Amino acid sequence: MEANAPIRIGVAGLGTVGTSLVRMVARHGNDLAVRSGRPIVISGVCARDRGKDRDIDVSGMEWFDDPVALARDPGNDIFVELIGGSEGPARASVEAALSTGKHVVTANKALLAEHGNELARLAEGADASLNFEAAAAGGIPIIKTLREALAGNTVSRIYGILNGTSNYILSRMEQDHIGFEECLAEAQRLGYAEADPSFDIGGQDAAHKLALLTSIAFGTEVDGEAIYVEGISSITSADIEAADELGYRIKLLGVACRTDSGIEQRVHPTMVPRSSAIARIDGVTNAVAIEADFVGQLVLSGPGAGGDATASSVMSDIADIARGDRVGTFGRPASDLEPYRRAGMRTHEGGYYVRLSVYDRPGAFAAISQRMADRGISLESIVQRRRAPRAAPGHERPVEPAPVIMITYETTEAEIRAALETIKTDGHIAGEPQMIRIEQFT
Amino acid sequence: MEANAPIRIGVAGLGTVGTSLVRMVARHGNDLAVRSGRPIVISGVCARDRGKDRDIDVSGMEWFDDPVALARDPGNDIFVELIGGSEGPARASVEAALSTGKHVVTANKALLAEHGNELARLAEGADASLNFEAAAAGGIPIIKTLREALAGNTVSRIYGILNGTSNYILSRMEQDHIGFEECLAEAQRLGYAEADPSFDIGGQDAAHKLALLTSIAFGTEVDGEAIYVEGISSITSADIEAADELGYRIKLLGVACRTDSGIEQRVHPTMVPRSSAIARIDGVTNAVAIEADFVGQLVLSGPGAGGDATASSVMSDIADIARGDRVGTFGRPASDLEPYRRAGMRTHEGGYYVRLSVYDRPGAFAAISQRMADRGISLESIVQRRRAPRAAPGHERPVEPAPVIMITYETTEAEIRAALETIKTDGHIAGEPQMIRIEQFT
Repeated sequence: MEANAPIRIGVAGLGTVGTSLVRMVARHGNDLAVRSGRPIVISGVCARDRGKDRDIDVSGMEWFDDPVALARDPGNDIFVELIGGSEGPARASVEAALSTGKHVVTANKALLAEHGNELARLAEGADASLNFEAAAAGGIPIIKTLREALAGNTVSRIYGILNGTSNYILSRMEQDHIGFEECLAEAQRLGYAEADPSFDIGGQDAAHKLALLTSIAFGTEVDGEAIYVEGISSITSADIEAADELGYRIKLLGVACRTDSGIEQRVHPTMVPRSSAIARIDGVTNAVAIEADFVGQLVLSGPGAGGDATASSVMSDIADIARGDRVGTFGRPASDLEPYRRAGMRTHEGGYYVRLSVYDRPGAFAAISQRMADRGISLESIVQRRRAPRAAPGHERPVEPAPVIMITYETTEAEIRAALETIKTDGHIAGEPQMIRIEQFT
Repeated sequence: MEANAPIRIGVAGLGTVGTSLVRMVARHGNDLAVRSGRPIVISGVCARDRGKDRDIDVSGMEWFDDPVALARDPGNDIFVELIGGSEGPARASVEAALSTGKHVVTANKALLAEHGNELARLAEGADASLNFEAAAAGGIPIIKTLREALAGNTVSRIYGILNGTSNYILSRMEQDHIGFEECLAEAQRLGYAEADPSFDIGGQDAAHKLALLTSIAFGTEVDGEAIYVEGISSITSADIEAADELGYRIKLLGVACRTDSGIEQRVHPTMVPRSSAIARIDGVTNAVAIEADFVGQLVLSGPGAGGDATASSVMSDIADIARGDRVGTFGRPASDLEPYRRAGMRTHEGGYYVRLSVYDRPGAFAAISQRMADRGISLESIVQRRRAPRAAPGHERPVEPAPVIMITYETTEAEIRAALETIKTDGHIAGEPQMIRIEQFT
């Protein structure tokens, strides 16, 4: 390619991100040419409904009804996949583009979490770039930071708020003392949550993103299945208030860290110290923190979603290709990625927050404490939030459950689960125990 | 160069950053080769005192006493300048390296703030890279973010905490209610401040860094002189307490923003809303926030200094060159940088915090208010912190100054300065008025 020949882009998918990208090239075309050393031109586009009014000017761009045809078309040098979904036309078109040796830029986390290893090998074999800055944390340049800026570091832990919907709900629950259901309904009204919110609040969306970050951070193959996932729907106002009293906030975190038995990957509601940087990320904002041997700790925060912010990351990937910068999909050649060795959750070590509804009977609390002690679990603090009213003199005290909150010192997932199982069987508590993991930061 | 030929580094300066870099290559050599596609080898080093014990292994590296000789030596492909200073051996060796077409990586903010335009042209003419990630914010990948990740954005404002020493002092003053002098002495004991701290606390260090960020963010030539600079030594505990009462924190910020009359660059103590991300950066940590049209707001925080963190950024630059990634020094060809058009401080618009020691006499406050009104300045809030004790009945009230704090609505620097000048002349206040600019965030 000549230095000043335009680089031609084919864009498949004209939703919020695709239309933002078209607007960006129209608005900043001159500046993009100066920065990249060559003009960036959208030569072809593809979407399901050609007649839809998108308020963008696509004249001068060739229209395709079939994304695979656009992916194979020699009229573009980079195929931008903004269709979504891990199978179907998204997968087919990305594979078609890479097979013809064409560079691919995608915002598709599900596709990469599920098929990232094969696609990375396909890209490498065809000597093409496969870039996906927009897939991990919207507008935050976390992929570039991990793949390039931290080249001289070994990462020990990466964690983040990777789902804006969940963070919005938890922030609102805390700030305005309202319940989960009400917050979710509000998030849906404001467009922060889908009509079917399960993918966001169930943690799957964050898990897909975490899988990509883990691969680059630790140099391992992507394994989108090997993630422990727990969503936020069990979090109650009682948990949020108790966390506040104890100096914590509750965040849906994705965490990946190196342990003796492999790499732990988990997404779950997490108690984080109120003074930590990650605790202070509110609303739909995302944030990723990286701990590495030379740099220490870096935190990047910004918009995790939205058409414009996501288009910003898509363009970062395009500009890199236009400039001739070639980085391995996951930061190194696909053949150099180590097999992912999963550390199971049973060996996870940490402190735990436990909330129980304890029947207020003599000996109940002693029995519970003993069950914890039997498993070698020490308690850092215990809060009995409020007792049921005492019965009149001469009558038996009412057997109403009262909330008891415990914070444990460090133990393992296996021990705490075993202890809670026995406590349940003993019959001193009502309902299910609530258990939230505590993440410590240095 | 063959794909797998090693890239050879010459390192001039073996202080904390240089020794960290040597250790990094020793520890992570294999991984660096995998990530960069070729081995990274330190082939030559240079420092003033060869005999000094640095606890690093430099066997196998050629020793140079003269950095210019190392810069010219054909035995290395990249010259890493870690000497410091805007003139002398640092400048001479960087010029020598670029003149021979050799890539340069430097952590030297003063050199680039003062000679960045010439050096960028020299690099471009020689088809060499001039990279300086470590010069702006230690381990934070802000140069890469601005030069590459935000390619599709127009930046409207960039601001940050760019000096860890000053931030440490302000944080300590606030948290522990101790005075400036005591905090400075402590920072010196802990090694966070130099024996001569004037460059840090006077704002010059932050100004150099800001000049580099401004150039990339706005596509303009570097002008390290065109920055309004005010340090933190005038900040008192009274200011910090008043800020807290009013919902603000005081930070030494570097701010660059586009205005109608040009680009404003300033470093000064700043009142920032307590709820803003930047307000929550404590201690020696640095942070940079970017506001841009597509991405919205990004905030990057991390270590702004320290040998290991700075070496992390130096290696990021080296790995980019090893991989073949070539970016213009300030994000675009030197000939495409626009002349820097300075917006003078007189036209700066914003709110102001003003603290006066007012003699408690009838009419004093009315006169002061009138002077503000004469300049069209409206007051958002007024706090009279404590009055001098009233005199006994029948006696005149004591004429002791009492602190009065005002927050203005938006006005200009010219108006507030003129108002305060007149107020001083009127004789109702003791000493100098304190004035701190307020920065608003959306």
